Amino acid sequence: MAGIGAIDQLKQALRRLPGVGPKTAQRMAFYLLERDREGARQIADALLLAVSTVNHCERCNNFSEQSLCDICASTRRDPTQLCIVETPADLDSVEQSNVYKGMYFVLMGHLSPLDDIGPDEIGIDRLSAVVEKHPIQELIIATNLTVEGEATADYLSELLVNRDIRVTRLARGLPVGGELEYMDQGTLAQAFGGRRPF
Amino acid sequence: MAGIGAIDQLKQALRRLPGVGPKTAQRMAFYLLERDREGARQIADALLLAVSTVNHCERCNNFSEQSLCDICASTRRDPTQLCIVETPADLDSVEQSNVYKGMYFVLMGHLSPLDDIGPDEIGIDRLSAVVEKHPIQELIIATNLTVEGEATADYLSELLVNRDIRVTRLARGLPVGGELEYMDQGTLAQAFGGRRPF
Repeated sequence: MAGIGAIDQLKQALRRLPGVGPKTAQRMAFYLLERDREGARQIADALLLAVSTVNHCERCNNFSEQSLCDICASTRRDPTQLCIVETPADLDSVEQSNVYKGMYFVLMGHLSPLDDIGPDEIGIDRLSAVVEKHPIQELIIATNLTVEGEATADYLSELLVNRDIRVTRLARGLPVGGELEYMDQGTLAQAFGGRRPF
Repeated sequence: MAGIGAIDQLKQALRRLPGVGPKTAQRMAFYLLERDREGARQIADALLLAVSTVNHCERCNNFSEQSLCDICASTRRDPTQLCIVETPADLDSVEQSNVYKGMYFVLMGHLSPLDDIGPDEIGIDRLSAVVEKHPIQELIIATNLTVEGEATADYLSELLVNRDIRVTRLARGLPVGGELEYMDQGTLAQAFGGRRPF
């Protein structure tokens, strides 16, 4: 980007952040230059460090600085359960809920034929290899309840159901604090269909 | 930030961007690591370049890589008019409107006693020096019509009105495309008070 000034280069570069348009990029650039140059240096250093040291865990496919991430390397996790999530953010959410102590596999996306994202792009072969290699007894499919997430879940269940492994998916129904008045029809239908004895 | 991983360092660093909270920082970090590492390097380079090369124009106080910015160095601008704006973004807006061909002074903020921003912090002494030194005939106060911007405008007009210079401020009234039905009372009052013959 020779030929344009450092400020314009910075504005253009910041637009590569997700959700950042020209106005926001300009605001960020001016803010950093006027009020937080130390922060600007810190962001630059953190970016360069992360792109040079962060790779994928060779077992669960999550981001990791080591070849095995902390969860996969831990001896305190249950190796018989494998939870399949779409993204590292989803994994963090499950971890924060403190309800699950098994292993993970992170797809790093979901099937999306329109965007040319097929089974290869979400690492299905690596997932199959993990399932072959480890003593897994239950596969918990925890993709999002979006159209793409549901399609991915369907694909995974068809792929994995033939083995001698229990395949489950997360319960669907009313969220905690949910009010029937404001709930969409799909959620209500799921909640009725999946009702359980008191 | 030794002791925490590269991903957490990146998340923390990105939170120094204005308007970016923990969830957004995480989304940005994961997006760059998974889909745009080249973009991450580009942002880092642009940040380091900008903080090392961008300073303030010694005349108008705007950001500049040279000691005089392009506008102040230009011979095609009218040196008898000086427009005072709060920020570089405001200056860009005026420039894009193509209605003004004079010089600028950028306050880099507005008076805000609650935030400890007084006359010294917005470069009033440098503004006075510029007004002394150059053959200025009209000062156009173009601060924002916010409480702080108005207070700054009042302060500037009192400071500058004693000299033999015309001090003006931007017209206030209905914006282009404005509908009376949706206009606030203050704007309507200004529009009535400032009405002009057809």
